[in-house]
Amino acid sequence: MTKLIQCVPNFSEGRNQSVLDGIKKIASGEAGVTLVDFSADESHNRAVATMVGSPEGIERAVIALVQYAAEHIDLTKHTGEHPRMGAVDVIPFVPLKDITMDECVTLSKKVGESIANTLKIPVFLYESSAQRTNRQNLATIRKGQFEGMAEKLQKPEWAPDFGDSAPHPTAGVVAVGARMPLIAFNVNLSTSDIEIANSIAKIVRGSGGGLKYCKAIGVMLEDRDIAQVSMNMVNYSGTPLYRAVELIKAECKRYGVHVVGTELIGLSPAKALIDCAEYYLQLENLDYSKQILENHIL
Amino acid sequence: MTKLIQCVPNFSEGRNQSVLDGIKKIASGEAGVTLVDFSADESHNRAVATMVGSPEGIERAVIALVQYAAEHIDLTKHTGEHPRMGAVDVIPFVPLKDITMDECVTLSKKVGESIANTLKIPVFLYESSAQRTNRQNLATIRKGQFEGMAEKLQKPEWAPDFGDSAPHPTAGVVAVGARMPLIAFNVNLSTSDIEIANSIAKIVRGSGGGLKYCKAIGVMLEDRDIAQVSMNMVNYSGTPLYRAVELIKAECKRYGVHVVGTELIGLSPAKALIDCAEYYLQLENLDYSKQILENHIL
Repeated sequence: MTKLIQCVPNFSEGRNQSVLDGIKKIASGEAGVTLVDFSADESHNRAVATMVGSPEGIERAVIALVQYAAEHIDLTKHTGEHPRMGAVDVIPFVPLKDITMDECVTLSKKVGESIANTLKIPVFLYESSAQRTNRQNLATIRKGQFEGMAEKLQKPEWAPDFGDSAPHPTAGVVAVGARMPLIAFNVNLSTSDIEIANSIAKIVRGSGGGLKYCKAIGVMLEDRDIAQVSMNMVNYSGTPLYRAVELIKAECKRYGVHVVGTELIGLSPAKALIDCAEYYLQLENLDYSKQILENHIL
Repeated sequence: MTKLIQCVPNFSEGRNQSVLDGIKKIASGEAGVTLVDFSADESHNRAVATMVGSPEGIERAVIALVQYAAEHIDLTKHTGEHPRMGAVDVIPFVPLKDITMDECVTLSKKVGESIANTLKIPVFLYESSAQRTNRQNLATIRKGQFEGMAEKLQKPEWAPDFGDSAPHPTAGVVAVGARMPLIAFNVNLSTSDIEIANSIAKIVRGSGGGLKYCKAIGVMLEDRDIAQVSMNMVNYSGTPLYRAVELIKAECKRYGVHVVGTELIGLSPAKALIDCAEYYLQLENLDYSKQILENHIL
């Protein structure tokens, strides 16, 4: 029973290679932590590190990363397409194995408090760690961006969860919280009519009365001349991937179109796909932690 | 890229707890090796250890295990329901991650040669490691069992691949080889007629003109009063689990019955189930080694 957490800090730096190298070095250098993915985008001027490791290792790595970012990233000089409010913009903790969401919430609060106390960067707790309902959604917290934070933090309803009511002069503020892994999952349709994809997206997503943990939009794949329902599955236990596919198939019938394929973008936990195999194979009584060989080694 | 091998040595001992404890201790004590399962059966008088680890760690553990078994298990005094020919009866090496079948064959030959040279136990190479076609099938090699091996090894066609043409006086002979993981997978039918399960089993299995890497028999589940197609999937890459299910569903139509559920018995590699999700979800271009999160940690 090895507890494993995924942590995906977002940094407001996508251009300075020496700073990116510094981030990668820290993210991969901590004992018990593996850097499984690192991507930087110049136009967004933003980098995302995906680490997996023990709660203790992740905690040490995150605090070292925030300190490094605060020393090397200056938001007063930052430009880029992606909205941002801090040198480290957001730090999600994701339960992966033998650890509960509650334990990830506890860890996020411990790390958040430490960041505020030792690095003097105000912290908002978001998603499952949020202590106020207006802080569950990251976009709501980030509204106003770095430039608007000094004024925003003065408002009583935007007092940080940890730290002073003034942003760090160059590193801004940071959102810290626990959430389920996000899976980017697309369903391709046998039509070049984007309106059909838009209509199905509206039906399948939670905000449209569809599946609670599914966000969806219609997208046109120009090179293949087909329309796609592009989804973010934000809780694959609550809304499994197969359920979105089957619901889309059902709605397709209304338009006389069908599913020609699906796509997984980026990473997925094995369990999100094995849950689908369990459904389609009609597997009875699968004991995921005991019957999947790899779970005995991880 | 961590190479991982599964190794599942079978021991001809299922009753003497002190010997079983000794086996478990060695199987779990080697650096880089995890004992993921251990089961002993009194009536079979046999134990099976499932280890996963690096090729080097597995090599060291196996040689230590064979030495221990040769010192503590005496086949001249062994009785039990399961056929057997050696103190360690069979040692399969199974490729799990970032390692080819060819590399497992090479390792099996290296280990086999070492067992013959240092422990004076004759070795037959079987399954994918077999150097003669009559040695692919373990049951063919084991025919005559321990008591018949002295005579069998004298025949030119049964000269061991490594070691002398005489069994070890108390430890007999051992089969060593590389094979794909074996998955025990059952499909339950909406009928209490065992003849329907038998007929479908005959059609789905390779020996009946069905799926090459599938062995199948009909079985009655008395407590549920339903019939079952009970299968050993001996190469899930060559014959995926979903293909057996879909073929069984097609044959069910002939009898007006349907699949009420399926069962996985024991362990399965994650990929065997993710391959099924890939099929049913119609996933395009899934990159298993890169897109499954856990593969970056293992």
